[in-house]
Amino acid sequence: MARASAAMIGAATIGATADAPAQEARMAFRAGRYDGQTAGLAPGYLQGNLAILPGDLALDFARYCQRNPKPCPLVGVSDSGDPMLRTLGADIDIRTDVPRYNVYRNGELADQPGDILDLWRDDFVAFVLGCSFSFEQALLDEGVPLRHIETGATVAVYVTDIATTPAGPFRGPMVVSMRPLVPADAIKAVEVTSRFPAAHGAPVHLGDPAAIGIADLSRPDWGDAPDIRAGEMPVFWACGVTPQVAIRAARPSICITHKPGSMLITDLASTQASNQPGRAPVVGADQGAAGGPG
Amino acid sequence: MARASAAMIGAATIGATADAPAQEARMAFRAGRYDGQTAGLAPGYLQGNLAILPGDLALDFARYCQRNPKPCPLVGVSDSGDPMLRTLGADIDIRTDVPRYNVYRNGELADQPGDILDLWRDDFVAFVLGCSFSFEQALLDEGVPLRHIETGATVAVYVTDIATTPAGPFRGPMVVSMRPLVPADAIKAVEVTSRFPAAHGAPVHLGDPAAIGIADLSRPDWGDAPDIRAGEMPVFWACGVTPQVAIRAARPSICITHKPGSMLITDLASTQASNQPGRAPVVGADQGAAGGPG
Repeated sequence: MARASAAMIGAATIGATADAPAQEARMAFRAGRYDGQTAGLAPGYLQGNLAILPGDLALDFARYCQRNPKPCPLVGVSDSGDPMLRTLGADIDIRTDVPRYNVYRNGELADQPGDILDLWRDDFVAFVLGCSFSFEQALLDEGVPLRHIETGATVAVYVTDIATTPAGPFRGPMVVSMRPLVPADAIKAVEVTSRFPAAHGAPVHLGDPAAIGIADLSRPDWGDAPDIRAGEMPVFWACGVTPQVAIRAARPSICITHKPGSMLITDLASTQASNQPGRAPVVGADQGAAGGPG
Repeated sequence: MARASAAMIGAATIGATADAPAQEARMAFRAGRYDGQTAGLAPGYLQGNLAILPGDLALDFARYCQRNPKPCPLVGVSDSGDPMLRTLGADIDIRTDVPRYNVYRNGELADQPGDILDLWRDDFVAFVLGCSFSFEQALLDEGVPLRHIETGATVAVYVTDIATTPAGPFRGPMVVSMRPLVPADAIKAVEVTSRFPAAHGAPVHLGDPAAIGIADLSRPDWGDAPDIRAGEMPVFWACGVTPQVAIRAARPSICITHKPGSMLITDLASTQASNQPGRAPVVGADQGAAGGPG
């Protein structure tokens, strides 16, 4: 149970009784007290994928996100050179407040530091993109089972033959995550996730994998081979790996992302990724009630 | 009946039986055969507000839109220096394909030309933002009456004391449009417009105008004084005048917009502004069925 253990480690390490759990988690990352996965930490708070790019690529990347909102749902953009993500929370310093970073140089992974204080430049722009955690929580709340969470596996992720709309040097195939569901749950999943445009929104495909260029479901490009049972169909969502592939294709002199699984935790409510956004959860409230009393 | 007459003028001028009504309308604008209002033209096609800015302001304006999605729902951004809006339709030349333009220099209206061929620069970026036409059509389709359309008036628009989130030099108050509705229709209007995030989405306020800094509903900042009847409450939506105010405050050396009311008509379906986007309408189909057979 990868998520449960991350939550337990987190609770022990960063203090689960904090008044401001998202901020407390970031303080633990900033101090170097935790550098693991963020799934299960600060429940009810919006987590996001991070991409930091040099200023001369920032407008093209903003255009890439605008043109491909399902794989690249922008939830925040820093001012140029400003490491504080002022629209996403109080005191978020993007140089230190993610558990661990991937530093790419010319499209190749060069380092995985715990902070990027010595790498920050005054032309850098930080982009934060919504991730699937928000819609997965909503699916669980609606009673839609998610196999990879039940079995502690990593969700299966595939490259498709669907081309994204390019912008400047950013281009490439759409990458999707797949969750196997029985038809009734697939229908419910479309209804629920369509309300979460900032967390990849409704599926991009369901059924025949070959229709989107996936030859063999048992061999995902990332994640664990899926456990698809009788009566289930594969349901495919646009995935945050898509912009990572586009960025690598662009081969920027430098690009810094979160280390996969170690996301940015914002002060926004997880439901901010929906079109019925709620407030951030009240500490001590039941997580399922984060969006309000009903 | 401003809209009916625009539609009638349009039908007579640009040919209502065209195979591709949005493109035919743009060809009429490009040829100088029509320079009036676009409400009622090419029914079922998404219309948008236009803002063209110099390259050194483009990233800040993209950030302003990302941070203020209700007043500034981005539906398309051109490549730098490219006058063709490739993501919004076939053969849209933004230098000629809007009926008439407003040219602002240092924040002041300087000219209202029919094209901007001689003004275009290779650093210009064109931004297209969703407008209220999509959600107004959806409201009418759902049986919610809109007084300003019934009476042929221009919708009442007000400056509020709600501050937008600034980005670079772009900042200022949120501007709202107001439609008076009985409570049952106000509720329905929230439901319907919340499905149209790219057309300003759900209202930002309803009821007491003073709560958002509006002193006197009978004196709008733009548009006609509203006709509010017994049992109705004012319902306020974020308005596309907001970015115009922010742009004027930034006083760019040059900025080019559409002339108010003379919008860009895209090849996208009007329902693309919703989170249940449909295809562009089939020519000859009933307008109300643009989103599908139900």
